[in-house]
Amino acid sequence: MAVMVADVNAPPDVPPDARARLYAAAVQAFAAQGFHATTTRDIAGAAGMSPAALYVHHRSKEELLHLIALGGHRRTLALCQEAVGAGGGPVRALDRLVGDFVRHHADNPTTARVVNYELAALTPQHRVEIEALRSAIQTLVRDLIGDGVEAGVFATPDPMMTAAAVLSLGIDVARWYDETGWSADAVAEHYVGLVGRMVAAPAPAPDLTTAPPPAEERDRA
Amino acid sequence: MAVMVADVNAPPDVPPDARARLYAAAVQAFAAQGFHATTTRDIAGAAGMSPAALYVHHRSKEELLHLIALGGHRRTLALCQEAVGAGGGPVRALDRLVGDFVRHHADNPTTARVVNYELAALTPQHRVEIEALRSAIQTLVRDLIGDGVEAGVFATPDPMMTAAAVLSLGIDVARWYDETGWSADAVAEHYVGLVGRMVAAPAPAPDLTTAPPPAEERDRA
Repeated sequence: MAVMVADVNAPPDVPPDARARLYAAAVQAFAAQGFHATTTRDIAGAAGMSPAALYVHHRSKEELLHLIALGGHRRTLALCQEAVGAGGGPVRALDRLVGDFVRHHADNPTTARVVNYELAALTPQHRVEIEALRSAIQTLVRDLIGDGVEAGVFATPDPMMTAAAVLSLGIDVARWYDETGWSADAVAEHYVGLVGRMVAAPAPAPDLTTAPPPAEERDRA
Repeated sequence: MAVMVADVNAPPDVPPDARARLYAAAVQAFAAQGFHATTTRDIAGAAGMSPAALYVHHRSKEELLHLIALGGHRRTLALCQEAVGAGGGPVRALDRLVGDFVRHHADNPTTARVVNYELAALTPQHRVEIEALRSAIQTLVRDLIGDGVEAGVFATPDPMMTAAAVLSLGIDVARWYDETGWSADAVAEHYVGLVGRMVAAPAPAPDLTTAPPPAEERDRA
């Protein structure tokens, strides 16, 4: 566990962890009241500072929202890249991606809600930047599913729509997780199984030269 | 298509559709700014009324949020009950439930976001009422999945957690649907397939007396 050490050279009204405290206070305030009802005074007060001290670090509350959205999306993209980069093939990569993605949203539900629900409040330029990160995440998941389809281990009629569903499952955990008594690991493990079945290629048909297919297969054909 | 008929006996400042206009204006304002940043003046203005005229119909903006949350959750519960009540067994009922649930959230994304993201702003009594409706929806989906497991057509280690995932998939459509060019029907149809595979019982094992199982089956056993 990290021990916080005060920087004795910092001026007393701007502690070394001021930016971290402002960031945390902004997450809490945006989640509780929404971006538009939150004032810089609310954030500064919750961080134990004056509004003037906040402006030493940030030009506006939108700058804080941008930092929060940027941090959240970059962490999520990194997590997805690590899962794919670890190798082992599409099945193992998707298992790891879903598990880590769900665990991340269960462990950080308040930040995740701000990151996903308050994007409309960003300036147009900041919105474009965040949309590019969202697009990179979606493309990565779509390509991973597409690679599995090509390799014959996944089957899905539309990898992009399936990627949207996989991301939805994880993101929406942040909406309801606090209301449950489930552990993040239990939800992550269960969701790895659900997504695995969602995209799994059907088992190869039994050899027709030695045995008839089961009745269900015949009915569907 | 319904034709709107003006009630000639209504006072000119309170048109017969005043409550419907206030409801619609409140949905838009809560979605755009969040509940806490919205004033009764904003809602009344968007509905083309004075703040005083709003108070003829509603005591507070929280009363409007309560009506919106109540309407949304009752419609969703009714939709789920209809799917189960239509019969045809668990597979057909879950297909219909997922399709209707997804289509409903794709067709009403703004209302759905208010209904699901602004619940913390309700009074404690109203919150309890809405939580009871949420619980009824979750229980219905869990029982439907549980019935399918008992009947041998579904397989899932935790029907309650799987129900949470099924509901998440539909609810989260409201977050991203406006950004896509997909039709509500296309998303609904794709999601019916995804959920179907998520919960499907594995195909019966081939008859071992006439043919060996495929290699994958042997490896898993």
